[in-house]
Amino acid sequence: MTARHVVVGNHDRVDPALVAALGAGGVATVHEAQGRSGLFLPRLRPIYPGATVSGTAVTVLCRPGDNLMIHLAVEGCRAGDVLVVAMTAESEDGLLGELLATSLRAHGVVAAILDCGVRDVAALREMEFPVWSRAVSAEGTSKIAAGSVNVPVVCAGQSVSPGDAIVADDDGVVCVPAASAAAVLARVTERVAAEVALRVRLATGELSADIQGLRDLAVSLGVEYVDGISPG
Amino acid sequence: MTARHVVVGNHDRVDPALVAALGAGGVATVHEAQGRSGLFLPRLRPIYPGATVSGTAVTVLCRPGDNLMIHLAVEGCRAGDVLVVAMTAESEDGLLGELLATSLRAHGVVAAILDCGVRDVAALREMEFPVWSRAVSAEGTSKIAAGSVNVPVVCAGQSVSPGDAIVADDDGVVCVPAASAAAVLARVTERVAAEVALRVRLATGELSADIQGLRDLAVSLGVEYVDGISPG
Amino acid sequence: MTARHVVVGNHDRVDPALVAALGAGGVATVHEAQGRSGLFLPRLRPIYPGATVSGTAVTVLCRPGDNLMIHLAVEGCRAGDVLVVAMTAESEDGLLGELLATSLRAHGVVAAILDCGVRDVAALREMEFPVWSRAVSAEGTSKIAAGSVNVPVVCAGQSVSPGDAIVADDDGVVCVPAASAAAVLARVTERVAAEVALRVRLATGELSADIQGLRDLAVSLGVEYVDGISPG
Amino acid sequence: MTARHVVVGNHDRVDPALVAALGAGGVATVHEAQGRSGLFLPRLRPIYPGATVSGTAVTVLCRPGDNLMIHLAVEGCRAGDVLVVAMTAESEDGLLGELLATSLRAHGVVAAILDCGVRDVAALREMEFPVWSRAVSAEGTSKIAAGSVNVPVVCAGQSVSPGDAIVADDDGVVCVPAASAAAVLARVTERVAAEVALRVRLATGELSADIQGLRDLAVSLGVEYVDGISPG
Amino acid sequence: MTARHVVVGNHDRVDPALVAALGAGGVATVHEAQGRSGLFLPRLRPIYPGATVSGTAVTVLCRPGDNLMIHLAVEGCRAGDVLVVAMTAESEDGLLGELLATSLRAHGVVAAILDCGVRDVAALREMEFPVWSRAVSAEGTSKIAAGSVNVPVVCAGQSVSPGDAIVADDDGVVCVPAASAAAVLARVTERVAAEVALRVRLATGELSADIQGLRDLAVSLGVEYVDGISPG
Amino acid sequence: MTARHVVVGNHDRVDPALVAALGAGGVATVHEAQGRSGLFLPRLRPIYPGATVSGTAVTVLCRPGDNLMIHLAVEGCRAGDVLVVAMTAESEDGLLGELLATSLRAHGVVAAILDCGVRDVAALREMEFPVWSRAVSAEGTSKIAAGSVNVPVVCAGQSVSPGDAIVADDDGVVCVPAASAAAVLARVTERVAAEVALRVRLATGELSADIQGLRDLAVSLGVEYVDGISPG
Repeated sequence: MTARHVVVGNHDRVDPALVAALGAGGVATVHEAQGRSGLFLPRLRPIYPGATVSGTAVTVLCRPGDNLMIHLAVEGCRAGDVLVVAMTAESEDGLLGELLATSLRAHGVVAAILDCGVRDVAALREMEFPVWSRAVSAEGTSKIAAGSVNVPVVCAGQSVSPGDAIVADDDGVVCVPAASAAAVLARVTERVAAEVALRVRLATGELSADIQGLRDLAVSLGVEYVDGISPG
Repeated sequence: MTARHVVVGNHDRVDPALVAALGAGGVATVHEAQGRSGLFLPRLRPIYPGATVSGTAVTVLCRPGDNLMIHLAVEGCRAGDVLVVAMTAESEDGLLGELLATSLRAHGVVAAILDCGVRDVAALREMEFPVWSRAVSAEGTSKIAAGSVNVPVVCAGQSVSPGDAIVADDDGVVCVPAASAAAVLARVTERVAAEVALRVRLATGELSADIQGLRDLAVSLGVEYVDGISPG
Repeated sequence: MTARHVVVGNHDRVDPALVAALGAGGVATVHEAQGRSGLFLPRLRPIYPGATVSGTAVTVLCRPGDNLMIHLAVEGCRAGDVLVVAMTAESEDGLLGELLATSLRAHGVVAAILDCGVRDVAALREMEFPVWSRAVSAEGTSKIAAGSVNVPVVCAGQSVSPGDAIVADDDGVVCVPAASAAAVLARVTERVAAEVALRVRLATGELSADIQGLRDLAVSLGVEYVDGISPG
Repeated sequence: MTARHVVVGNHDRVDPALVAALGAGGVATVHEAQGRSGLFLPRLRPIYPGATVSGTAVTVLCRPGDNLMIHLAVEGCRAGDVLVVAMTAESEDGLLGELLATSLRAHGVVAAILDCGVRDVAALREMEFPVWSRAVSAEGTSKIAAGSVNVPVVCAGQSVSPGDAIVADDDGVVCVPAASAAAVLARVTERVAAEVALRVRLATGELSADIQGLRDLAVSLGVEYVDGISPG
Repeated sequence: MTARHVVVGNHDRVDPALVAALGAGGVATVHEAQGRSGLFLPRLRPIYPGATVSGTAVTVLCRPGDNLMIHLAVEGCRAGDVLVVAMTAESEDGLLGELLATSLRAHGVVAAILDCGVRDVAALREMEFPVWSRAVSAEGTSKIAAGSVNVPVVCAGQSVSPGDAIVADDDGVVCVPAASAAAVLARVTERVAAEVALRVRLATGELSADIQGLRDLAVSLGVEYVDGISPG
Repeated sequence: MTARHVVVGNHDRVDPALVAALGAGGVATVHEAQGRSGLFLPRLRPIYPGATVSGTAVTVLCRPGDNLMIHLAVEGCRAGDVLVVAMTAESEDGLLGELLATSLRAHGVVAAILDCGVRDVAALREMEFPVWSRAVSAEGTSKIAAGSVNVPVVCAGQSVSPGDAIVADDDGVVCVPAASAAAVLARVTERVAAEVALRVRLATGELSADIQGLRDLAVSLGVEYVDGISPG
């Protein structure tokens, strides 16, 4: 049986250019582009509005109330990484604050995704280190519990492997597995172009019901039009 | 038995002048003025602070994860409407984003109230299209499930009929049934005047306990004053 | 048996200078400095970002949906007090709004901590009266239910006695019992100094794993280093 | 404007034979038979397993923590009624216990549906008075707050009018509006017959995928069969 | 400043005869009898129905996911004690299972109240060791985190001191402070007698509205009787 | 890019003898034996007490409110399988009832694990088909949404691959990956033996604090013994 608690030193990462291009698409579009998969549960919220990031996942698995493994993860981080912290059990304790953020930034990390709490949020906002978390909590942490670094984890309902592409914005957080990043980007590009064209038509009052033939579909599903609107 | 899924084309609406006047009162005052009724559950929150709207309800009933009926609702909308989306079962999926908001705005809709999730919130904030929702989620949607447009619905615990007045601000969302809108407005006007006068007195240090005789009431309820404050 | 519902007029308060100094430390540091105790549950959130306050607790115990006892608490308040409202049962109703805040401010209260809802948040933000609450809700209140003022309460999971020091910021709310305020402040001062020094080292890329010897600890706990990072 | 707090004495009720026949169908079947509508939110759970009831709704609207209006509702109850208690705001306080159940039973009420808490559950189980509630809580009640009896309410997300048919079992609670009870019963009868026949086929190993042609549908939706199962 | 983590060896306990007599009253009655105070939050539920216990509190304060302090608490337990476990932060991990229950029983403990999870519930049910907890979870525990034994704690929203009387049944859990146990018992006895008499009257169809004069109260609160019931 | 929605026909399964032996260990022991990993979130609860099952996972990924893919999964099931249903977004709708259970049983499935709701629970209890779910809900389902069968999924926070061993009892649900099943079983066997021996010692009053040296550990962590108990 393999060791249960490991710190893995090396892993592949999605190409930075790919990651940046995915990030430009935004969370909602990337999520759609990969078949409505990869989204973290919406309980993860940004600590301040307007942040948009993309990067490659460094994964950490922690016990509730203990951030020992985040400390151990720092030295394996590189420029462009995003810290992804999963928990062995549900907890809202604040596992990351200003000091760890300072250390992570010094090693190139651009953001943190925490399926737990975060603290020092005023300082993090001031230093513009974006964090998506399930809670804000000053509940402090011990550094006494074994866990793992850079193993596959489940964070907020989403499987993440080290090196996967992570995109996060005001809409939430999405993971693009390394193996499919290029294919997803192709679809993202298509969708963005299509949405630009559609937005212009909708803004002038055209109806998606007309453009996409939705009324006929609805009628075929048993929807009746009554009292003044006819389905075509 | 009537059809189960319908799109209703025409319905009466509360007079726009009445709606605007109610909106000036704000959610908390309107709610008090109609006997502490009409409030949507507080799980509905605005996607950005400071927005205040009022309008007439266009109601939509959707299945979780499917926004077909929102698309079909657009063509029946008029200037001054507020979209109210109820669900057949609890869900946080993001049923509305920038494209639908663009389309709704082109048809006069001033805001959306969603008992589900919303996506593209950065874009919605930038275009200043206010939304009250129970979650932010990039979880995308299908367009394959039948529902209804402009039938009476229950949205976040509140009954809403098409054409009712809706007021929403940072405190939440309240519905004023069309039949009682004029009477409620009369009470709102009274309350606003009374509150202005009361605020001045409180700001100078007068006590509501004195102004409203609350200490005698408390003593009659069995409250004892001990150790230095006497009830009169 | 003592009376069940009381309004207590006089109580000791932590020295204002002590309170102010604790407030300068911030919630997360104060919480750590007193042995990770005193924190209110993270469900209490500020109604707008950036507020930082400290003060001495005036406690109120209310029934759900009724704010009679808050009205009765005002006259016992002094400059530098923080209102702490606990509930006899769980509720999100909005027990405090602009009028009560105006009255509280006129009597010196600097903030309110509510284990229930708050309303008129736009007005409170404008008048810069900070509130930490578990919900925003326009659900109004009666003034008909007996409760108590300035008795020991449990608010959001935390025991608070009248006169205790309260510190609140974006990270949450913490209570420092009057008896230990001086001792906690001493530790806060130590921690702040240590954190300043540590931040400088971490910002230049030093590892907490090195500074604090965490790798040896991890190995002793059974963590294995694999694939490229060695624990020393 | 109509009075805000009323006790309505008389209302129509669905025919008892219809109600009993609906009850025999069970909650899940009735819900399906009326187009997947009428279901109370699943947060309502029975206090003991195995109870199955049907009856006609007597509706009550209460303030959190106060059961005055339930006391006032008793005298209007008749044999075969089901008490349906809605709240003006969310609360888990225990508004009904053994004494009220004794009184309700003496007036013919067969069950209670509470969007709040219940207490004395051991006694209720022993006297076999079934209750569906959102919580069990000994949190007691005042009798000081005005509300209404036999007005239309929203209980656990569901609109209920006095006299509507209510069916409740281990699966939850469903409401059938008086106007459509006969039509829904006809559909219930059809469904029950169809399900009996289908159950026999499925028990012998036939596949619903074959019987209902679901594989072709899936393929048309873009589902691919790989590695050993073919869609036909 | 006093030590932050302590194991206190000796403490007073409420007299066993008093505790037993309180237990006979049941949770709902005890809670009412002490002025609707002392109730733990309703999130604590029994792991099997029908258990009723009373005893004296042994208090434990644990970190999430760690039960070291429960192990240390055992030797200070005596016949008739009830274990009360509070947490430093919210957690549902299963801190107690069959082995600890076996050990606690060997030292006289009759039940456990856990503001966290419990595991081995099938075994606990079979050995008839009742537990009230906020979750069932097999999530295991470490034994590495300092905490305290027999200090005042807040468990599920309720303050508990070592030696206080605890009563628990299907309705939940209530704490009676040692100092007021005798006075509360006197009230419990009165209430039980009054309820017996009232139950007889209600069972024969008398109305609490008549017995307690509730209709006049309601009318004075603004309730209107319409359509067939008159308030007197 | 691979197909997004697939039905996979063949997959390996853990050896039935291994699965049965793991099941005999129970959820809590298996979870401990594999290093406190593999546990589904405690929100999954059995629909009736006392059921204990083990089997090999057949995985299904569904959209909220739609069970098309469960219907398609049946024909790939074999004797000894356990159905594991994951969702693309959070939902409590009842995706499985008596008819599907009848069909699954006819194809050898022994239990279902659902990260959504279940319906017909009275019938399921009677036919003794155990289900672990996050809710009971009669909310019905469509059969119109594409998903997948027998792909790796995340169900209630736990990664599951087709063919993995699943153990479920009153404590919850745990997954043992196929690759480590034999190694985990070896540890389970050791633990069970050790627990039997330890139970005997604890039942006679020996202290785990003595047996495991926990007092010295506590003192080294800063715990102080005061007032009558000495740490050794």
